[in-house]
Amino acid sequence: MKDIQSMRDDRGIAIQKVGLTDVHLPFSIQSKDGQHQSVLANIQLTVDLPHNFKGTHMSRFIEVLNDWSQKPISSKEVGHILREIAARTEAQRAHIEMAFKYFIEKTAPVSKYTSVLDYDCTFLGDILEDGTFSFILGVSVPVTSLCPCSKEISKYGAHNQRSTMRVKIQYQQDRFVWLEDLVALLEAQASAPIYPLLKREDEKYVTELAYDNPKFVEDVIRDTVLAFRKHPDIVWFDVECINYESIHNHNAYARHTEFK
Amino acid sequence: MKDIQSMRDDRGIAIQKVGLTDVHLPFSIQSKDGQHQSVLANIQLTVDLPHNFKGTHMSRFIEVLNDWSQKPISSKEVGHILREIAARTEAQRAHIEMAFKYFIEKTAPVSKYTSVLDYDCTFLGDILEDGTFSFILGVSVPVTSLCPCSKEISKYGAHNQRSTMRVKIQYQQDRFVWLEDLVALLEAQASAPIYPLLKREDEKYVTELAYDNPKFVEDVIRDTVLAFRKHPDIVWFDVECINYESIHNHNAYARHTEFK
Amino acid sequence: MKDIQSMRDDRGIAIQKVGLTDVHLPFSIQSKDGQHQSVLANIQLTVDLPHNFKGTHMSRFIEVLNDWSQKPISSKEVGHILREIAARTEAQRAHIEMAFKYFIEKTAPVSKYTSVLDYDCTFLGDILEDGTFSFILGVSVPVTSLCPCSKEISKYGAHNQRSTMRVKIQYQQDRFVWLEDLVALLEAQASAPIYPLLKREDEKYVTELAYDNPKFVEDVIRDTVLAFRKHPDIVWFDVECINYESIHNHNAYARHTEFK
Amino acid sequence: MKDIQSMRDDRGIAIQKVGLTDVHLPFSIQSKDGQHQSVLANIQLTVDLPHNFKGTHMSRFIEVLNDWSQKPISSKEVGHILREIAARTEAQRAHIEMAFKYFIEKTAPVSKYTSVLDYDCTFLGDILEDGTFSFILGVSVPVTSLCPCSKEISKYGAHNQRSTMRVKIQYQQDRFVWLEDLVALLEAQASAPIYPLLKREDEKYVTELAYDNPKFVEDVIRDTVLAFRKHPDIVWFDVECINYESIHNHNAYARHTEFK
Repeated sequence: MKDIQSMRDDRGIAIQKVGLTDVHLPFSIQSKDGQHQSVLANIQLTVDLPHNFKGTHMSRFIEVLNDWSQKPISSKEVGHILREIAARTEAQRAHIEMAFKYFIEKTAPVSKYTSVLDYDCTFLGDILEDGTFSFILGVSVPVTSLCPCSKEISKYGAHNQRSTMRVKIQYQQDRFVWLEDLVALLEAQASAPIYPLLKREDEKYVTELAYDNPKFVEDVIRDTVLAFRKHPDIVWFDVECINYESIHNHNAYARHTEFK
Repeated sequence: MKDIQSMRDDRGIAIQKVGLTDVHLPFSIQSKDGQHQSVLANIQLTVDLPHNFKGTHMSRFIEVLNDWSQKPISSKEVGHILREIAARTEAQRAHIEMAFKYFIEKTAPVSKYTSVLDYDCTFLGDILEDGTFSFILGVSVPVTSLCPCSKEISKYGAHNQRSTMRVKIQYQQDRFVWLEDLVALLEAQASAPIYPLLKREDEKYVTELAYDNPKFVEDVIRDTVLAFRKHPDIVWFDVECINYESIHNHNAYARHTEFK
Repeated sequence: MKDIQSMRDDRGIAIQKVGLTDVHLPFSIQSKDGQHQSVLANIQLTVDLPHNFKGTHMSRFIEVLNDWSQKPISSKEVGHILREIAARTEAQRAHIEMAFKYFIEKTAPVSKYTSVLDYDCTFLGDILEDGTFSFILGVSVPVTSLCPCSKEISKYGAHNQRSTMRVKIQYQQDRFVWLEDLVALLEAQASAPIYPLLKREDEKYVTELAYDNPKFVEDVIRDTVLAFRKHPDIVWFDVECINYESIHNHNAYARHTEFK
Repeated sequence: MKDIQSMRDDRGIAIQKVGLTDVHLPFSIQSKDGQHQSVLANIQLTVDLPHNFKGTHMSRFIEVLNDWSQKPISSKEVGHILREIAARTEAQRAHIEMAFKYFIEKTAPVSKYTSVLDYDCTFLGDILEDGTFSFILGVSVPVTSLCPCSKEISKYGAHNQRSTMRVKIQYQQDRFVWLEDLVALLEAQASAPIYPLLKREDEKYVTELAYDNPKFVEDVIRDTVLAFRKHPDIVWFDVECINYESIHNHNAYARHTEFK
């Protein structure tokens, strides 16, 4: 049976990225407490295609992902996946994006009831021709923001809303930043964290906390920038904040990116 | 060239709905001020298929929609579209769902600045074997809700958030309810309406209005039910309210449906 | 601390559904092989609210869901969840919708390579005033459809595309239908099933299978209706088929619902 | 009334982007035939915020967009919008993303019936400190792709599917590329274009055209790269192709970016 993909291509164009998107697979993620968490990943996996090949072999992408779907992974294993797919497709470079919901236990501030909250996370990995592996950790953290202007000018009350802090970071190669720690750092920059389970005494607490701690979308960004600049292991970050304004049908937005 | 669709089918199954979904077309909607508004519609159009035909002729659906895409439409014209597609496909029944964003001018409460706000609207139409035409008008209205519990138990402040009121109504055949009037009725049931453009004096006003007017998702539903029961022309309604809780990552929700 | 939700309401309106939507939690689903599969569920849980209460207690919904998040569930346990939330909120009726991706192993038709495919599934449960529990099982199955008209009129080739069969069923109270069996029944009604992992010999097989087996959206529906009518345990079904036409930017669609 | 936004900020952080997202407004786009097309735009508009200001004035963004919502716009006017918002917010840089559906008339290849097809388009504009304005035009074009491997190895038939070509281009400052021309160029690189309205003779034509013209996702990318390299006015491009594989539930994908 003819192998069309392996045939020679004469257009002289090496393609930067070829592969699969929207592959859904269960994966097992290493968590800070030494356990593993089973997650549902949506994956994009691509390699470069040399100019002389007509096509890449897409079924090999599924084979590699299926294998790794069985074993606990973290940043290091993301590098292994990339090296394996590059080897199997005779590619020089490989790129992966894995998006998944990751659950972290939250303790209500007063009642101390516990419950789990889902965070949208991403692993982005790249290997280059020279073998260099780079890894970016991403997370979206839902928080409360309370408007300083509304609080200042109103006799009582202040508009507040759910916000999303969407963050990507790179850390030093020999260090490691856990999702659990990154989330805690980010929640501390908002007007208040959010929780799945709050009793009345907790609701009073977070309402007053947010009112005591008004923040524009600009304040959330600036305080996060300060926290990241101080962090010893983070070398690059990209932070966005989106406020789903309770008084509008559009969102307030800010974004900042820095190589330290 | 053979007409496969018109061939005889022997399985003896009349299909209830056959047609197209996700057809995107510009349409022109009659507005309350006597003008027309150009909207972008996402359309589902189906007919029944008698047991003896193998298939319906899908290109006729596009022809009918293309024609009506040129002319201003309202509920009456939705009936004309349905009768036309039923006639062209030799069907007894036809059903349409048109979803579109409709813009209504909003005046800021204090500064009186004007701006336009988009509302997600739907026209749902049905004709039956006996020629009966029924029409349902749907609209989603973004509003502010402020939590009565949070206000009561906290020393200051109260959590509030963007909410969506999602409503469908049927009115008496010889009457008419304008989207503009339906939206105004609904906005009056929330803690506060929302606006695209607010100056500082307006922001103070809506912040205090919401604080003076705390409502659970249950309150929004009950007050809307009361308003609909009083409305002389509305004969059936379905109302949902979704609060995108600022202190949680899930939503509070309520729904109620009534034939009056 | 005042319990606002428990206060008396004087509007005289009992609300049909009050609760939470978009709760994300891991759940464990019983699979046909006697194992459990860890899934990520998106949940809507509601109860009715008697006319005399101002509000329901939303935190109890999270408590009940958190508890059940730890234990393997199937239809029977869905009933337990509903009875528990009704009891905890003094409600007469309760309703749940759980949506989750469920993985089933697929064996490539010729090479016999195995891989897992994700299916979007739903559990819908209701309990009524009289204690009756009803359960609906839903699943979306991606398949290939190949157009009989295109095949007939063209010298060679035939347009084909990815389609989704979206199905809900109810089965007799004392019987049980496994997702694994429902999916297999549905895949047999399309032009060809789809697979995550296909080698060249498999690709040849499914290409020819689809060409030998052309089906309109109407054919897929009719063959599914026939299969469901013959099934001894299914008492009600709702089947939709959506063809993401490769020659259009809209979809062909059909739907049929039946109490047997 | 205090202007909190104008207050001095002491954290010393200039924010790269502050503004609004998900603003929905009607806009009027200049079309190639000298007319204007009314579109529904989803807009992100941001400016930089100097380190010494606490916040930007978000209501001014809506005012500027409202004004421009009334007048026909094209790339030049996007520059005017950016200069205006930068001036009104005392910013050095401004960035806009406008996403909208744009309709282009399509003529069926044999029957010559006409209908309109919607294309997802984007205008991306930037002005920098030195006043430089750059503009990127984006469009997503739905097409048919037919698999060369499936055609080669199968006795008859070949799997094909709907694909999306997602393209961004920059052209020389003193030149102009119309959406209508860009779409036509892209449709020529696929196995076959798609149409909203096809009669039987057209369906035969596009079925055979695709079969005569098999293309991997890699072929679509390479042929597009060749076409763009030859185009006298295009100086930069980014092209993606996504095949919604009819035999899988994931997508084949390729991407290539080039400064010429």
